[in-house]
Amino acid sequence: MPQGDASKGEIKTPSCRFCHGDNGIAPQPSYPNLAGQQQQYLYDAMLAYTNDMRLGPMATMMKGQLQNLSPQDLADIAAYYSKMK
Amino acid sequence: MPQGDASKGEIKTPSCRFCHGDNGIAPQPSYPNLAGQQQQYLYDAMLAYTNDMRLGPMATMMKGQLQNLSPQDLADIAAYYSKMK
Repeated sequence: MPQGDASKGEIKTPSCRFCHGDNGIAPQPSYPNLAGQQQQYLYDAMLAYTNDMRLGPMATMMKGQLQNLSPQDLADIAAYYSKMK
Repeated sequence: MPQGDASKGEIKTPSCRFCHGDNGIAPQPSYPNLAGQQQQYLYDAMLAYTNDMRLGPMATMMKGQLQNLSPQDLADIAAYYSKMK
């Protein structure tokens, strides 16, 4: 995993917020909270969506959301959410 | 999702604790925290592992862990972790 920069991550999360909340707490129970989640797990999970290791309608949606993000972007986003209280 | 019973869930989690922590906070950054996670998401994620909708070595491990649990068990476990602070 690249070294993540939480401050850069913050500006890369506009499309995350609709489902995962401005504060990383999901407004709907079928979406996961991200606030305070483990950084490596968040990175691995996002990578799994992009690599077709998670399947189904929600996974397809996540793959679409992540398709233009680089590994560095994913690491920055993981850093941002992992540090959120 | 069946109605979950957190108190029954607690006694069904001995094998969860090794990787996800006694308090639902994972001791290793590659494992997700479960404490306070959304109940429906936890249920859906566990079901995804059992239905081969999540792939890879960790998913295979999770499928093995979950293989003897019923939908009711999964709902109880989801209730337990979602209520954990």
